[in-house]
Amino acid sequence: MSERALVVLSGGQDSTTCLFWAIERYGKDDVSSITFDYGQRHRIELDCASKIADCAGVPNVQVPIDTFTALGGNALTDDIEVDDGTADANSLPNTFVPGRNLVFMTFAAAYAWQNDIKHLVTGVAQTDYSGYPDCRDETIKSLQQTLRLGMETDVEIHTPLMHLSKKETVQLAASLGAIDAMALTHTCYKGERPPCGRCAACEIRAKGFAEAGIADPLVSQ
Amino acid sequence: MSERALVVLSGGQDSTTCLFWAIERYGKDDVSSITFDYGQRHRIELDCASKIADCAGVPNVQVPIDTFTALGGNALTDDIEVDDGTADANSLPNTFVPGRNLVFMTFAAAYAWQNDIKHLVTGVAQTDYSGYPDCRDETIKSLQQTLRLGMETDVEIHTPLMHLSKKETVQLAASLGAIDAMALTHTCYKGERPPCGRCAACEIRAKGFAEAGIADPLVSQ
Repeated sequence: MSERALVVLSGGQDSTTCLFWAIERYGKDDVSSITFDYGQRHRIELDCASKIADCAGVPNVQVPIDTFTALGGNALTDDIEVDDGTADANSLPNTFVPGRNLVFMTFAAAYAWQNDIKHLVTGVAQTDYSGYPDCRDETIKSLQQTLRLGMETDVEIHTPLMHLSKKETVQLAASLGAIDAMALTHTCYKGERPPCGRCAACEIRAKGFAEAGIADPLVSQ
Repeated sequence: MSERALVVLSGGQDSTTCLFWAIERYGKDDVSSITFDYGQRHRIELDCASKIADCAGVPNVQVPIDTFTALGGNALTDDIEVDDGTADANSLPNTFVPGRNLVFMTFAAAYAWQNDIKHLVTGVAQTDYSGYPDCRDETIKSLQQTLRLGMETDVEIHTPLMHLSKKETVQLAASLGAIDAMALTHTCYKGERPPCGRCAACEIRAKGFAEAGIADPLVSQ
């Protein structure tokens, strides 16, 4: 298996940073990206992912997953008002799609298996995580083992942002020359462009840029 | 979380046996079944699963997964001649869909999570396995841990056939009163009905019934 890498690119700030991280580590010619069309309400994410990959000069394959919409019941695919989870500290936010990252990574691993790619890169982080248990380091390590056993492969899952704060993620993006590309990303839970600036996702992003002392080109453009 | 069970029902002999196993263990009122429409060439499997669930008196939900067809490259979803893997002992058969069982179980766990169901039941077996690494006990145990971590649940995956031979699986089905339902199942890789009797799947099934000394109602009907 070659030293090629596949980045799971959502069109957001974190996965875009990971794309530039992978390009620096493996070289542009050995990096590609995969984006899942899982019925997300904010279809703009798919367009963002495509433009970000173009900007970075790597291929982007978009793969459908119709299953989450069929299962329903969450605010990312259904017409349900976003609840950021702050109302009840003991419950998961209603943006939680059970198993979403597990499914994304399993399909990414299947694509990698078919295309002789060893390295998977994902922008999950547990530092600032919004209550999503499938973004934690322990979960990803267990998933890597499951994928290795289930596909007889030595796939490696890389999570360069796992233990970074949003401030540190912005600093990493700056060190990788990825700030300009941030103008192409999408973060807002409300799907607004320019971003609403008030939802939990916008607030976390703004705080990261502010603490890093770097202007967010998405806001200032 | 209640002591309810969800059986992953493919419409084949093994998952049908598991459905009757679950009914005996949890009671009919606490068992339901889930079937994935993943673009399988033999659409008859979906009809079989529905009829088997009806026959057993439990609900059956059918959930689409369009991703495997989009990824392509295997004999179960594409128009590729089935290779049973005997040509090359070191390679996986081309009926291998990378990550298929991992994805099935993850979506089943997501459905179970949404519906407050603790137990998942699947008919995978490593004894007679056809080279599928995602059917092995080690893989399933690792997957259970990944699902528990990723969904913050105490889901249990049950694999009652894991260490049984096909003969023992037929004997188990007989002890559960599931032999009549076998007339509704589908096994043949070629999609023929009555079954072709010559493909690897038909041969394994026939051998199991013969060794158990029980007539297969699918063949003798």
